[in-house]
Amino acid sequence: MAISARNSMEGVIKEIKKGEVAATVKVEITKPSLITSMITREAVDSLGLKEGQKVKVVIKSTEVMIALDE
Amino acid sequence: MAISARNSMEGVIKEIKKGEVAATVKVEITKPSLITSMITREAVDSLGLKEGQKVKVVIKSTEVMIALDE
Amino acid sequence: MAISARNSMEGVIKEIKKGEVAATVKVEITKPSLITSMITREAVDSLGLKEGQKVKVVIKSTEVMIALDE
Amino acid sequence: MAISARNSMEGVIKEIKKGEVAATVKVEITKPSLITSMITREAVDSLGLKEGQKVKVVIKSTEVMIALDE
Amino acid sequence: MAISARNSMEGVIKEIKKGEVAATVKVEITKPSLITSMITREAVDSLGLKEGQKVKVVIKSTEVMIALDE
Amino acid sequence: MAISARNSMEGVIKEIKKGEVAATVKVEITKPSLITSMITREAVDSLGLKEGQKVKVVIKSTEVMIALDE
Repeated sequence: MAISARNSMEGVIKEIKKGEVAATVKVEITKPSLITSMITREAVDSLGLKEGQKVKVVIKSTEVMIALDE
Repeated sequence: MAISARNSMEGVIKEIKKGEVAATVKVEITKPSLITSMITREAVDSLGLKEGQKVKVVIKSTEVMIALDE
Repeated sequence: MAISARNSMEGVIKEIKKGEVAATVKVEITKPSLITSMITREAVDSLGLKEGQKVKVVIKSTEVMIALDE
Repeated sequence: MAISARNSMEGVIKEIKKGEVAATVKVEITKPSLITSMITREAVDSLGLKEGQKVKVVIKSTEVMIALDE
Repeated sequence: MAISARNSMEGVIKEIKKGEVAATVKVEITKPSLITSMITREAVDSLGLKEGQKVKVVIKSTEVMIALDE
Repeated sequence: MAISARNSMEGVIKEIKKGEVAATVKVEITKPSLITSMITREAVDSLGLKEGQKVKVVIKSTEVMIALDE
């Protein structure tokens, strides 16, 4: 399956914690990767983002999906 | 600033594309990292996820934020 | 209430599972519907999406809201 | 690929609109389907949601992904 | 319409910027309000969050919807 | 830390509810604020949004992060 989500990183599950309806899964990413972010043009301008700049990417856990190759 | 978002990865901006109101920023992640995902308990059970298993993490670009240390 | 969210589908609740702070609700959609997706231009181009093409829409459960007409 | 996202619906692309960095894709869903939503327990209780009840599911376009079977 | 989304704040549109497919809308919130956040239990514990504590709530623009009373 | 997320509001934690893996945090916003929303151009046009108009902003709890100044 090919998907529109631009970010797909390979890794190994390190920990699973199960609640009654929610669960958290921790995955150790084993390969460096390229992350694509879509933000407002205004954020780029107001932060003064530039190619070559050191940044952090920040992602809320509820936005991360887990996939298996079959 | 400490933030509840569990995922923060260091990298370098490789490309910025600006539209009128939206923009995409591509960041090369330079260090291996641990990604936390919050999904339904049902997804964990139905995919049969287990510690030690090889998986992919998949993230939509609209969910990725860029941060700068000041 | 009119809302900017482009996707609204009528259905019937089939199952509710309650945890302490989270809950899952399963809704059977009873009418065919038109779904709008906002993705990166790059995803459209790289997947080669075209009008008339058969696709799947994929949505994480944490992004789905439930509404009641009053 | 199997994915943790609980919602996957088959359809046909009806319209694609491309901006410089963002794009919208409209998909006509051709089969009835079961949608899973993860919300707060409090929302279930305060709306008085019950199995058998008629509801709407509401989804923001930025949360909808497009996938292709290969 | 009653909705599962826990956060609804009244305000006045201050600025609209339109691109070809995306748009940004800035709303000045005119009343103080109570914001509900669902995060991982781990984030609460690791940040040491406590009732009475001063915090910031942070929200990505792509997650904010606009609604009209009719 | 400066972040691309356009929305940051100061407040005080009123209530924390902890489940096994998820938690909800309620924050009373103590200052009026300006909220930025990124939606489809189509939503702006079809709702007829205009500067000066009274609206509501609606946000799902799973999209709200909590941050601490350090």
